[in-house]
Amino acid sequence: MARDSGCVFCRIIDGTEPAHRVHEDEAVVAFLDQRPLFPGHTLVVPRGHVETLTDLPEESVGPYFTAVRRVTGAVERAMAADGSFVAGNNRVSQSVPHLHMHVVPRRRKDGLRGFFWPRGRYADESEAEQIAERIRAQL
Amino acid sequence: MARDSGCVFCRIIDGTEPAHRVHEDEAVVAFLDQRPLFPGHTLVVPRGHVETLTDLPEESVGPYFTAVRRVTGAVERAMAADGSFVAGNNRVSQSVPHLHMHVVPRRRKDGLRGFFWPRGRYADESEAEQIAERIRAQL
Repeated sequence: MARDSGCVFCRIIDGTEPAHRVHEDEAVVAFLDQRPLFPGHTLVVPRGHVETLTDLPEESVGPYFTAVRRVTGAVERAMAADGSFVAGNNRVSQSVPHLHMHVVPRRRKDGLRGFFWPRGRYADESEAEQIAERIRAQL
Repeated sequence: MARDSGCVFCRIIDGTEPAHRVHEDEAVVAFLDQRPLFPGHTLVVPRGHVETLTDLPEESVGPYFTAVRRVTGAVERAMAADGSFVAGNNRVSQSVPHLHMHVVPRRRKDGLRGFFWPRGRYADESEAEQIAERIRAQL
């Protein structure tokens, strides 16, 4: 499996960098984020070194997200959470260039409201439809 | 497949509620979010009505996230983005109780910095290890 010795997540996978591991299977290693949004904030990383979600081979998508789903349930139960936030940054705002999904336990009234960023509106239906067509053209 | 006529995403899937659809396959329907963080912000929803990621049947995880990955690439290319943000809220901050992953195109210096929430640290390694053990016990 592809490894990058300059990658801190590859070193965690190999066991040469310490981490508080919570789960591992053939597809992934999961461990606590050192700078948690809330205690129990876990990162799930595929064993093979790929940078982003779109770089993940198609045959690895199912095993990877099956593990993400399983870790999400465990984090929610372990932290007695009301819910969770599951997210990944691709390239922009991505601190380590090895695919990782964040699994963050949430509580109602935990101070992180709504979807946390200002949201806009399309000027009209025509603008929205033009954008949708651009995306369809790339599928 | 399970449907909930009170669910706006089920009505979009059925075609009885309008939406700017960008993709559909056997597993999912994808359409523009009406209140985008940035133009091209797309929601990917499984056809079957489930509330959260942990409610998604295991056999549906691969097909669902294969579509999320594909839509992510299309949104990045269509919007000439530098990267993307892929996220889902489970129960807390979840506006519609039908599983949906947000796919948001990102640009460097788009004003959404870092991981957008204040992040903490564990008091010490012992606290982190206790938390990791609680999660492991739920897996």
